[in-house]
Order: sequence, then structure tokens, then C-alpha cells
Amino acid sequence: MIEQPTFATRPAFLGLTSSDPRAEYVIAGIPLDIGVTNRAGARSGPAAIRAASRMLAGNDHPHHWVSVDAMPIADIGDFAIALGDIPRSLALIEQQAAAVNHLLALGGEHGITLPLLRALAKRLDAPLGLVHFDAHADTWGENYGQVYSHGSVFFHAINEGLVDPHRMIQIGIRSPLPRETYDWTVGKGVTILSAQDVHEIGVAATAARIHEVVGHARATYLSFDIDCLDPGCAPGTGTPEIGGLASWQAQALMRRLGGIGFVGMDLVEVAPAYDVSEITALAGATMIWEYLALLRAA
Amino acid sequence: MIEQPTFATRPAFLGLTSSDPRAEYVIAGIPLDIGVTNRAGARSGPAAIRAASRMLAGNDHPHHWVSVDAMPIADIGDFAIALGDIPRSLALIEQQAAAVNHLLALGGEHGITLPLLRALAKRLDAPLGLVHFDAHADTWGENYGQVYSHGSVFFHAINEGLVDPHRMIQIGIRSPLPRETYDWTVGKGVTILSAQDVHEIGVAATAARIHEVVGHARATYLSFDIDCLDPGCAPGTGTPEIGGLASWQAQALMRRLGGIGFVGMDLVEVAPAYDVSEITALAGATMIWEYLALLRAA
Amino acid sequence: MIEQPTFATRPAFLGLTSSDPRAEYVIAGIPLDIGVTNRAGARSGPAAIRAASRMLAGNDHPHHWVSVDAMPIADIGDFAIALGDIPRSLALIEQQAAAVNHLLALGGEHGITLPLLRALAKRLDAPLGLVHFDAHADTWGENYGQVYSHGSVFFHAINEGLVDPHRMIQIGIRSPLPRETYDWTVGKGVTILSAQDVHEIGVAATAARIHEVVGHARATYLSFDIDCLDPGCAPGTGTPEIGGLASWQAQALMRRLGGIGFVGMDLVEVAPAYDVSEITALAGATMIWEYLALLRAA
Amino acid sequence: MIEQPTFATRPAFLGLTSSDPRAEYVIAGIPLDIGVTNRAGARSGPAAIRAASRMLAGNDHPHHWVSVDAMPIADIGDFAIALGDIPRSLALIEQQAAAVNHLLALGGEHGITLPLLRALAKRLDAPLGLVHFDAHADTWGENYGQVYSHGSVFFHAINEGLVDPHRMIQIGIRSPLPRETYDWTVGKGVTILSAQDVHEIGVAATAARIHEVVGHARATYLSFDIDCLDPGCAPGTGTPEIGGLASWQAQALMRRLGGIGFVGMDLVEVAPAYDVSEITALAGATMIWEYLALLRAA
Amino acid sequence: MIEQPTFATRPAFLGLTSSDPRAEYVIAGIPLDIGVTNRAGARSGPAAIRAASRMLAGNDHPHHWVSVDAMPIADIGDFAIALGDIPRSLALIEQQAAAVNHLLALGGEHGITLPLLRALAKRLDAPLGLVHFDAHADTWGENYGQVYSHGSVFFHAINEGLVDPHRMIQIGIRSPLPRETYDWTVGKGVTILSAQDVHEIGVAATAARIHEVVGHARATYLSFDIDCLDPGCAPGTGTPEIGGLASWQAQALMRRLGGIGFVGMDLVEVAPAYDVSEITALAGATMIWEYLALLRAA
Amino acid sequence: MIEQPTFATRPAFLGLTSSDPRAEYVIAGIPLDIGVTNRAGARSGPAAIRAASRMLAGNDHPHHWVSVDAMPIADIGDFAIALGDIPRSLALIEQQAAAVNHLLALGGEHGITLPLLRALAKRLDAPLGLVHFDAHADTWGENYGQVYSHGSVFFHAINEGLVDPHRMIQIGIRSPLPRETYDWTVGKGVTILSAQDVHEIGVAATAARIHEVVGHARATYLSFDIDCLDPGCAPGTGTPEIGGLASWQAQALMRRLGGIGFVGMDLVEVAPAYDVSEITALAGATMIWEYLALLRAA
Repeated sequence: MIEQPTFATRPAFLGLTSSDPRAEYVIAGIPLDIGVTNRAGARSGPAAIRAASRMLAGNDHPHHWVSVDAMPIADIGDFAIALGDIPRSLALIEQQAAAVNHLLALGGEHGITLPLLRALAKRLDAPLGLVHFDAHADTWGENYGQVYSHGSVFFHAINEGLVDPHRMIQIGIRSPLPRETYDWTVGKGVTILSAQDVHEIGVAATAARIHEVVGHARATYLSFDIDCLDPGCAPGTGTPEIGGLASWQAQALMRRLGGIGFVGMDLVEVAPAYDVSEITALAGATMIWEYLALLRAA
Repeated sequence: MIEQPTFATRPAFLGLTSSDPRAEYVIAGIPLDIGVTNRAGARSGPAAIRAASRMLAGNDHPHHWVSVDAMPIADIGDFAIALGDIPRSLALIEQQAAAVNHLLALGGEHGITLPLLRALAKRLDAPLGLVHFDAHADTWGENYGQVYSHGSVFFHAINEGLVDPHRMIQIGIRSPLPRETYDWTVGKGVTILSAQDVHEIGVAATAARIHEVVGHARATYLSFDIDCLDPGCAPGTGTPEIGGLASWQAQALMRRLGGIGFVGMDLVEVAPAYDVSEITALAGATMIWEYLALLRAA
Repeated sequence: MIEQPTFATRPAFLGLTSSDPRAEYVIAGIPLDIGVTNRAGARSGPAAIRAASRMLAGNDHPHHWVSVDAMPIADIGDFAIALGDIPRSLALIEQQAAAVNHLLALGGEHGITLPLLRALAKRLDAPLGLVHFDAHADTWGENYGQVYSHGSVFFHAINEGLVDPHRMIQIGIRSPLPRETYDWTVGKGVTILSAQDVHEIGVAATAARIHEVVGHARATYLSFDIDCLDPGCAPGTGTPEIGGLASWQAQALMRRLGGIGFVGMDLVEVAPAYDVSEITALAGATMIWEYLALLRAA
Repeated sequence: MIEQPTFATRPAFLGLTSSDPRAEYVIAGIPLDIGVTNRAGARSGPAAIRAASRMLAGNDHPHHWVSVDAMPIADIGDFAIALGDIPRSLALIEQQAAAVNHLLALGGEHGITLPLLRALAKRLDAPLGLVHFDAHADTWGENYGQVYSHGSVFFHAINEGLVDPHRMIQIGIRSPLPRETYDWTVGKGVTILSAQDVHEIGVAATAARIHEVVGHARATYLSFDIDCLDPGCAPGTGTPEIGGLASWQAQALMRRLGGIGFVGMDLVEVAPAYDVSEITALAGATMIWEYLALLRAA
Repeated sequence: MIEQPTFATRPAFLGLTSSDPRAEYVIAGIPLDIGVTNRAGARSGPAAIRAASRMLAGNDHPHHWVSVDAMPIADIGDFAIALGDIPRSLALIEQQAAAVNHLLALGGEHGITLPLLRALAKRLDAPLGLVHFDAHADTWGENYGQVYSHGSVFFHAINEGLVDPHRMIQIGIRSPLPRETYDWTVGKGVTILSAQDVHEIGVAATAARIHEVVGHARATYLSFDIDCLDPGCAPGTGTPEIGGLASWQAQALMRRLGGIGFVGMDLVEVAPAYDVSEITALAGATMIWEYLALLRAA
Repeated sequence: MIEQPTFATRPAFLGLTSSDPRAEYVIAGIPLDIGVTNRAGARSGPAAIRAASRMLAGNDHPHHWVSVDAMPIADIGDFAIALGDIPRSLALIEQQAAAVNHLLALGGEHGITLPLLRALAKRLDAPLGLVHFDAHADTWGENYGQVYSHGSVFFHAINEGLVDPHRMIQIGIRSPLPRETYDWTVGKGVTILSAQDVHEIGVAATAARIHEVVGHARATYLSFDIDCLDPGCAPGTGTPEIGGLASWQAQALMRRLGGIGFVGMDLVEVAPAYDVSEITALAGATMIWEYLALLRAA
């Protein structure tokens, strides 16, 4: 039988045919974007990431030499959210996240990470380690008066004891930031590697630092904000900052994270209305695929 | 002294220099967009409309032969909103609207119209007539569970007695719509002219119908949703529907509305991320300018 | 339960949940585009039309007042094609079309219509009537040496006896065209209404002419090339020609075609790489929805 | 031998192979754009119009049934201009225009029309009739202090006696305009049909008015500013105004201008950086092709 | 009081409220672009840079830990220019520049730097040091016959004695260039570091070279042409050249320039019509913000 | 006489005036793209590369200090292809390639390389060395059932003995790939340097490896697939993969390839519909110009 070429692959993540919510790995879109502080549109991220992921289907990973498609993964579509209502949406997201196994969430804005961490921390009954790629520390206490914003997600996560700040590392940080926010974050024990740090010390040293912080085989979450990447690689996002990581650097880092005990991930802040020729969505899809390959290779 | 050319005009509406909130006519942006049901981004509408309005500055209106620039208008910038919070934003908008004279609001999504009508109805202590250009009736009781959505604004406005449905006319309606929503609307007394009606009966008959419905010199509000226009003329919006009005038809209608007692207006749903070469923003800016010229000519 | 808002609707046509190939009405994409003579990319048309169709889901048709979603329709995904091979692709398409009931095909280029007509004419054992919206007559004997091109589809359809040229009408024709091609077409008995004809005589007279040509309740096919529409309404196509129909005219015509015995349709030549903010894809989706509403209303 | 398909046609106008400056009809680009008052970029117009014109090559005109390609036309490339220097550029343009036969100029901005009219009026030793499609009257005395601007070209043409204002008609005018500029223009004897006039009286009456004003078989120039068209049809221009002509209206008018003694034309203000999928450039190319077909049909 | 979120910040640079021309630091747009040799449109640069700068407002600089917003800065809007007239524009620019304190100019094309240097050199009565980021040496004697072009600005600056070529360094140079132009430049004493040089020796060595050339605490000007950056980071410019600096490299360099006696700067050649999702404008805005942070940190 | 500025240069490669097929170096477009597996549109690559190449005309190469324009080069336009027919197109391409001297082909898709290698291997009567820049190994045995696809070109080239796999090196490889395809390729003797390899070992070591593999002054072909570059540098292509080479790396490599006995090259897979502001086309044009400069410098 003739297979379908890339452009005709069904628009599930990697063209997956399973949508079984009890699968070992579950892809779900979370199209919330009303908590963002600048350009809107991450609600359309899940659809764009799925479409772009078709480029990655049906072949082996060229570094780990594993077949991601053969993993027990399902794409269950998008989580229900409460339109226009952040608190109710956060509650709905937490409840839906609690019902599945290892979740890979397609954002949506970064605010979705808070209920995902709540669900995981509750299940594991312990704070999580965190590998956090981002241009922004996202530890503001509030943004323009909004308490549950995409910029305050890790302020809450730390305060609620969902993550262990001493096992939390932020990579690619570079936005303007109040000194007191920076000091609060570092004071809590968080390790911050700015984008300039990564450019200066290189990917091997950066990866070593990540391992050092989160430790071996301990429960760890990956939160990847696409604006960690440089706007040249990833223009399709709401709060771009220049000077970011090249996509090869992010890939090189991901490939060096074997042995970390990842229990879930999200890929957030892809805003397709600002993308060009789906390169941002493809970067997002590829990071998820790198994560899956890493798990399978482990 | 050398004047500034169009491209260097200051980015207030029409390059206005006054920002006095006590001016007779007040331009204000209302960058709320979190109540929309499809593509986001109308928060960036006010900035885009202001930028596009520079094409209209410094000359006379070629139909009414009046100079809009010479009117007592101020552009006071954007209203404060509560980021991520619709109910609080609606309250803030109403409060700020109550504090100014004749307001011309730059949306933002259509949900902003509700607090604007609340402020006006309270001030006038009477329901308003309404001329409503739109692709959508916006009389859904709720949208996907959201009560204060951009699709339910006139359901609430009618139910709260802010507008008099017998003095309310909708022009350009054409979206898919539950039969019961249509019946409810017409049952309340609202007059609906679909886009196909306008194409069939022409602009003169349409304008006559508007006058008939809202009456002469009685307090009337204009709410202009840019998606009333065809997506070919106005792609930059969140919920486009094909088959809409050409921009010349909207202009021809506006120019025939002399004698109506307009007390305020809004221009909503310009979403610049979906625009091309600012033609949607220019259409929006031009409709406001037509409104001002109409007032001045009257 | 909270429904999914438009932006999270699953990406089947109208978000349909059935993919049963035995459904009464079957949506299928046919992503062939290698027979085109100018800009490529219609292979991505089916995905784009499906995505845009979400704007039309879940409400009633505002003219016929029917619910298209409630019809026995399935979206079965894309037909298999033979990559890079037109003759084999045509054979595959015919074979797959023969296996389903009333087919609504999402192109892809116009060349797909030939095997679709072959399958239908064989099933009905009689030539079909044809309502053909297009900027191009598509009756060239060949294009630049290519025999099975998107420009020769109706030359072959007539020569193979698949359509009855006396029951065939073309609407919106306006491209440059060899006089002998025009004469051949008209000489065969085909009725041609140019775009200028439609603009001049109006939609009511045009619809009357269509009924006259194809007759009442006789087996008739609808082939809608999106370039029938003006490039202002539908830039996302491979061979645009200015001066086309406004989308409201196409809708007005479609709504007047009740009583025709339609047995199948295609919507072809949407090329998303040239679209802006999906307005072309939305126009395509809407025409299919108009067709379905017409069937249901009948 | 296999012909080249549209996408591989050589990028001369209509793929013309002659570049003989002594040809009866001469196409030349004039990439001047530094006299514009808003968005720049018409310098890239000639290349874009040539590229788009490939859609029109190699077939007959479907109304006049003539073959434009078979006319004695040459595309001689672009005129030399003096970079950054308007007065010297105008002198260079006049000199080059004087050296060729019937010229069809691809702008560039509207300021190029002045030296073209100077060359023609000198050659004919008489003022010309003028058919002028535009959104702007272009009879400002100056623009922001600039005397030879794209907005003052017909002020100078009338004052210099290059055109006979009583044989001059402007179609599509709709921009904001000082009342005194309008009065000056009409006072000189110019006939102005606004875009709203054309929409109201229709193309037949408009064409009749043009014939009335310029007369039969008398030396007449055609100046077609692409912003005459609606921004929905022609977004790629520097000073768009909504409410313009649909491209079918412009075509319908052009086809009714037989018998006028055209001696030259220009197509100006195509700014490709603001175009979408080359629809504006195609509209420009098509208008020139309509003009040539009209000449050949005559 | 609720602050305005990023998308509603007023469109002055960094949302600045002061427009006092006597401020210590003065931002001014200079929308001249008619001296460019390829793609036009830098006239719209100032507006785009201001809009993008909103991303940088209201927080501290994450390297120098200073608050740029708290500096005594005013945004005085755009300088007057003489539309379509380079010599008069240069004179106007010089005159306006002479009237303000430490100027940060938002171009506009690179030709504006000449009158800015004239004003500064006159005020200081001495030639300036120059740190010049660019893809082009801009020391052509003329370009296509144009003497005051964006490509000849430093030819004139050197010849007029405005800069001291032995204290002038060019970084990022990589365009095609006549050997004699290169030799002239180096022969005058200018130091050139090509983009390949920077990629090879790294940012620390490059910064050391800059310090070496311009010296400590001596009057020095910064001219930053955005095309210094790679087109992947900065597509929105008129004369892009591949192989340029990543934006992180430019930031890393800027942060190492403490101790240089900067007396003014310009950021030129942002052409928004060619930008994507404002990433070029954001790069431009960020470089100015780096400059201000450097001054404040010093 | 005044030269033409960049924007008015004639649209041959580098504005070349010769189209003599007997020139020593021959530029030809090969607009085939129907063998691609994802996004279509490389048929428009030749026109886009020619337009972008104008930025490189008329100056010296700033590294080799040679004048490419002065070489004996002709641009002979596009090769004839058989529309819609891959086997006949391959035959036509081989036949036309055989008739010219040193060919530099502007693709079109990568499938065109096969007939170009056939023509060269036949002429030289020996297998060629190959320097192959790409994101994909292109050694699939078939793609989705298609034997002559853009993904199988080097499978056939090796099997047909057109290239010597021990003198073949692939640079930038990074796409998903079946392990057996990789093993087959390496097993044949091909050297593969992934993009991550290049990022890790640097350009000097990479260049050394290339020399090692292909040897000094032996007949070698260069095939440059633009998707070798990162999508941030080159979004305009059909099968982008993140993590690619920066354009400066590709340039740095090209400049280090002196002494290799290049006998021809192609630059493939530029798909302008997905490009932004022609940066991909410019990258393509620049690589060809680097190749010519290398030849001239040798």
C-alpha cells in the first residue's frame, strides 16, 4: 500500500493514530493564552505544532537511533479550558492532567505549567526538579496586576512547594527583569544560566550544569518556552527577546540530558500568527521529539 | 516650518495633539481581547488603527467637505484594563467611559461594547438606539460556556435594557447561527439586514431602513465590528466570514446616516497580526473618520 | 460539559468525528498538485480547508436554516496518490472515488476532477451535467506539452463523454485563452458566462441560466475552482486572474441552485502558501458548506 | 519543442523577446519612488509587474479576441534615473521618453507622469487629453513642502499646459483632500468621478462620461494609479484608500474605451513590499494588457 | 493604579513620557530613506523601533542591573526633513541635531549619520572616534552617481575630518566591495573587522580590538547599521548580506564597551516592510537600550 | 552614463548580459519541483535566486578579492522540462546539461542533480567526487513509493556509479532517517558530518575533512541544498529541519575549499513562497557567487 507523504499525514502529533487517554505517553494541547502580557495567539500553538510535527514522522532519530513513532504514545487532542476564565481554566487543566500518565503538553501560554506541576507534585507527593528553558525567569510576583500570569508561574510553583528550587535550573534567561525578582529567584536556590552564559561556556558545560542541579534519575519536569530560542529561529511567539539560543544549541543540550528522571514536559508560547513558514512550530515539535527520543534511548 | 509627512505623523489618532480627557470628543483604545472565541490579537487593534489613521490627517473629507482635524477631539490613549480578568475589565471600562464626553472607542474585541453601553444608558437614563455593523448577531446567550464573550454582548445589552431592540438594526450579518438565537433576536424586535440583503437591495435602501429603525435625532449608538466587511477588504480580524460588505458600501452607508442622534461609537475586532499591509486597520480608522465627519457635517 | 471553542476544534472538516467511508456524504482530500502550470502548492489545500472550516461548525446555516453538522457525513482523510506520477495518481483517485457514496473532494489541483468524473459517469452509466465555477475554461487540449494538466480536464471530460456539454455551464471565466479553445468549447455546446457577464447581469439571472442549462433534478456535478473568485477574496491559488467574482456572489449563486440533482462536488486549487490569514481556505470551506446546506435544505 | 510554462517564462513584460527601442510600442520601467509621501517601494514595481505579466502571455484576450503578444512591442528594461535626485531624474526620464515611440511606462511613483507628459506634449505640440484612474486627484500645489511630489503631478501638468483640463477626467478619486484643491481642479475644467460615483452610476455610464470628456480619436494619455483599485484588490501600494474600484470595474471600463486616441500610458504606484501573493502586480500588468488589447482591437 | 501592559504602552521609545528637547539624553527619529541604493522603507524605522521598544520598558537591564527608564531621557518625536530632497534634509538634520544634548537617532537610512557627525564634530571642535557596526564599509566615493548616498557616508565623514580614521573601527563588514574602496579605507587608518573575523576570533577579542582602536574615555560615536546582523536575525532592512553577526554577539560586544566616551549614537536601516513579526525592530530597539544601560552603568 | 542601481539591475544572475550557451561558465535554472515530498514551490527558485543575486553584482569578493562579474559567464535562462513528467524531465535535463560547459544549476528540487551527474559522469567517463551540503542524506531507496524523488537522488547516483562514495562527503545532515538508510550510505563509503558535528568541531576542521575526502584537484561536484542552512537563515524551502548551519558557517566552509577540482554545481530547494524578504534566495545566490569567486581565485 502506498503511504501518505508528509503533506498528507493526518494532523495528530507525528501523525499518531492512537488517541487512547490511558497510553503510557500522552500528547495533549492546552490552548490557553489569555494570561499573556504582550502579543496573544498561543491558543493556536497546539494545531501548529501538530502540523509541523509531520516533518518528523516515520523515520529514526539520527542521534539516539530510536524510533519515536513506535513508542506507546497517544495524541488525545486538546484539553477543555474555560474560555476567558483563568482560575477555572487552571482548575480544569489540573484535573485533566491528573487523569493521564506521562503528559507532554502543547501550549498555549506558560501559565499552563502551574496546574501541570500541581497535578504532578500531588501525584508524586514531592516537589519536582525542573529544567526550564526560557528567555524569562517567570518568577514575577504578578504582572500588571495579574496574579496568575504567564510571567508568574514559577513564583507560584516555588511558593506552593511544587518544585524544589535547589533542583531547578533556568537556561536562556535574558529579558529585562527587576533586580529584586532576580534576587528572589536566586535567593530561593534556583540556578540561572543566561543566554549569554550558554553562548560563552558552550553546550557541554551547560549540560553538565543541568545534570549537577537536577541530579540523576530523580523526578524532574521539563518546561520549554519557545522564546528561549532566538527570534531568528523562533519569531512566532508573544514576548520575543533577541540574543537567544540557536536551535542547534537547544538540540545539543536536549541530547545530553540522558539519565534525568523526566516525568513530564510542556512546550509553550508558540504563537503561529507571528511565525514564518512554520519554523517556530517546527522548532517546538522537534524539541518534543527530542524529549521522546531521549526517553526511549534511556 | 516644514510639516511632517504622513509616515512621520505622531501616532495618535489622526496625529491629534490633544490628550485632554475633557474634550468634547474623546478617542480611547480599549485593548481587551481575551473574550474572543477564535483568533486572538484585537488587543493590538488600537495601536494599529492609530498608525493607519495618519493617512487621513490634515485634509478635508471629500464628501461632507468638513475638516475632522479641526474638531474638539482628544486621543487619551488606552483605557486601563485588568489583564486576564474579564469581569474586572468590564467594570474598569465602564468606569472610565463614564468619565468622558462623547467617546469613540478603538477595540479590542466586541465585548467592550457592553460596559460602554452601560455607561451611556446610565448617563442618559434610557435605552439607546443601536446601529450595529457586524458579520455576527452577537446575541448568543453564551459561547462555549463563557457568559461575557464577544458573541453575547447584545444578548446582555438587550436583557439589561441598555438598548431598545425596536430601535436596533444589525447590518451585514452572515455567520452560521443557531435558529433559536436568530429567532430570539428578531423576537425581541431587532431588525436584521444580512450581508446578502445589503448586496441585493443596495446601499440607499439599506440606509433608509436604518433611519426608519433608529429614528431622527434620538440617542443612538454606533457599534462597528470590522468583520462586517468582507475578508478581502478586512482580513485582519478574529472571526472572518466570507460574503461581507465591500468597504465602499460601508462608507456609502455611513455617509447617508446624517440626522441620527449619535452619542458614541466603537470600532472593534481589528486584529493586526492577521492584517495585510494595514488595510484592515485603515478600514477601521476610516470608519471612525466617517463618523466624525458625519457629526461635523450635521 | 464544556465544548471546545473554535480554535480547539479537531481538524477534520467541520470538526466531524465520523471517518466512516460508508457514510452517505464523504469528505476526502486529494492532495495532488503536480499537474499545475504556474504556482505550486494545492497539495496543502485539504489541510487548510479543514482548518478553516472550524469557523462554520456547530451552528445553523443562516439562509437555509439547516444544520449541516447533523448530516450523515464523514471526513475520511486524504486519498492516496502516487507521488510524482500523474497517470498513476489519476487511476488511484478514480478507484478510491468509486468506493464511496456522494463524494465532496478537497483539492488539490483541478486535474483531480477528471478521475472523479470518470468514477461517477461509470457508476451512473451516463454523462453528467456540470456546474463549473472557474476563471479558466480548462478545455485546452494540452498545456506546455502536458496532456493531463489542470488546464485540460474538461477537454478530456467532454471527449471521454463523461459530461454532457449541453448540460455544462462555466461561470466566472476570464483568463487569456486561445480563440480556438473558446470556439471548441462553445462548439461542443458548453455555455460560458464570463466574470464580466455575471457582474453585468447579476446573480439572479446567472442562477436562472444555470438552471436552464443543467435542468431540474438531473444528475449534475459541481466543480468549484477557487480562482473563480477575485484574487482580493482568494489570493491563495496558483493561477489567479483579476476581475473575478466576489465571494458574496458565489454564495448568492449557490443558494439559488436548489432543485439541481447534485451527485458530487469538488473544491480545487486552494494553495495555502499564497493565502493571507486563511481567507482563501475559508472561502473554499464555505462553498462546500453551502453545497451541503443546499442538499439538506432540498 | 516544449514551450516554457508560466513559471519559467523569461521576466520581460509578457515574456517579450524584443528589446528594440525603435519598436512601435515600448515597455519601460521607471523605478523612481523618492517623491512619495507615505510608504516607499514603488521602485520595485517594474520588476514585480513584469514577473506577474507572465500569467497573461501566450493566449488571446478573451473579450477583444486579439493576441497582444503578436503586436510590435519591445520591453527595453528600466530607464536610467538619478538616484536620490528628483529634478535630475525628471529630466532624464523626459529625455529617454522622447526617444521612443508609443511608450507604456511601468512605475515607479506617480511623479514620473510629469516628464512623460512633457515629452509627449512637446512631440505633439499640443496639450493632451487625459484619462486618469486614481484614489487621489494629485493636484496639490505641493506636499509637505515638496514641489515635485507624486501628489502634485497634475497641478504642474495643467499649469504647464501639458494637458487640456477640459479633456481631463479623473476616476476613482476618494482620498481626503483640501476643499481648495478640489475647487482649483474642477475650476480648471477637470471632470472628477469619485469612486462612490462609479459604484453608484455603474461602469457603462462612467465609460460614457469618459468618452464625452476626452472625445473621439483625439490624442489622449492614460495614467493608471493602482491605488484607484480597492486595497482589497491592490494592497501593494504606498497610499491606499478604502472604498476603491474592484478590479472587474476597472477592466470593464478599459474595455469600453475603444475609439479614444491613446498615445501613451503609465501604470504607477505598485509597491511590491506591501503586496500579497503578487495580486497588485498582476492587477497592474493586466491593466497594461487591457490597454494593448484595446489598441490592437481598434 | 493598574499599569498598562506591554501591548498598551504608549508608543514613545520605552513608553517615555518626556518629550523635553532639553533632556540630557534625547531620542529622535530621522525618517529619511531616499538615499538608499536597494530596497526602500527605512522612513518607517523610527515608528517600528518605538513600538518594539515597549518590550524593554519597566524592568532592569539583566547584565548591568540598571534601570534605563529612570534616566533623564526624552523622546522628542521625528526630526523634520525636506521630503524628496537630500541636501536640504541633511542641512535640516544637522541643525536640529545641534540643538539637543546627547542624541540617540532612530533611522532612517545611514545617510543621516553624516549631518549628525557634522553637528557633533562642530560642537566638540575635534574629530570623533567611531565604533561602526555594519555589513558595508560605506566608504564608496559615490553610488550609481549619487554623492550623498547611504553608501558614502564615511567617505565624506573622513574627508571632512569629522572622524579620526585611526580611532575608527568597522565591525561585521562583509558585502561585495571594490578592492580600491577597501584599500582607501584601510589606507586612511580605519580598522576593519569582517563578520568572519568576529565569528573566528570571538566577542572578547573583538571587544578588546574596539577598545584598542577608540581608546578610553575619548569622545566616540556609535553608528549601528542593523544590517550588521545576519538576515536571519534582522530581515527587515534594505541591503541584507548573509553571514552576519547573531544578535547575541552584538549584545555581547555592546556590554563590553564600558569606559568608551560615547557622545551619541544612531541605529539605522530598519525597514519594517521587510521585517517579520517586528524582530528587526526589536533588535534595533535593544541595541539602543544596551547603549543606554552601558552609559548608566558607567 | 549613469549605471542602474541594484533595484533596477536586469534580472539575469548578477545582471549578466551574456546568454551565450557556449560560455565557459553557464548559469541555468531548472524549475522542476514535482518530485518533492513535502512543501512544493522550488520551481520558482531560479527566478528568486536571480532577483536576489543583484545585491552581489558589480563589486569585488571581499575575501578572495576577485571580480566575479568579469568571468566568462552566461545566464542562459531556464532549461526546458516536461511539465508533470519526472522521467521525461530528467532525460531533458541530462540532454541540455550535456550541451554546455561548466554548469551552475539553479534549482528546482534536488532531483535535478541526478541527470546533471549523469551528464558529467558520461562526459568525464569516471565517477565524480561530491561535496554535498544538505539537511538530508537523500539516499533513501524511494520515498512514499516514488523512485525518482528528491530524497533518493544519491542512492541512484551511487548505484549508477556516477559518484565515488569514498570521495563523497555530506555536511549538515540532521533529518530523521531510517537507521538502515544511514548504514547503507556509510557502508558505501560516504562520509557524513552532521550539523551537530560541524557546530562542535568548527569550520576549519570541517573544511579539512572535506579536502581529505575529495582530494586535491580531482573532478568534484558541489551540490548545495539550501536546507543545509538553519530555517532561521533559510525558511524558504520545502523540508526545513531545525539545528542547521548558520550562513556564515557555510560561507566560511566555501572559502576554504580552494584547490578542489570543481567541475559543476547546483543550488537547490529554494522555495520562494515560504521565504521572507528574499533572505533564502539571497543565501542561495551568495553560495553560487562564493563558488565562482573560489574558481576565479584558484
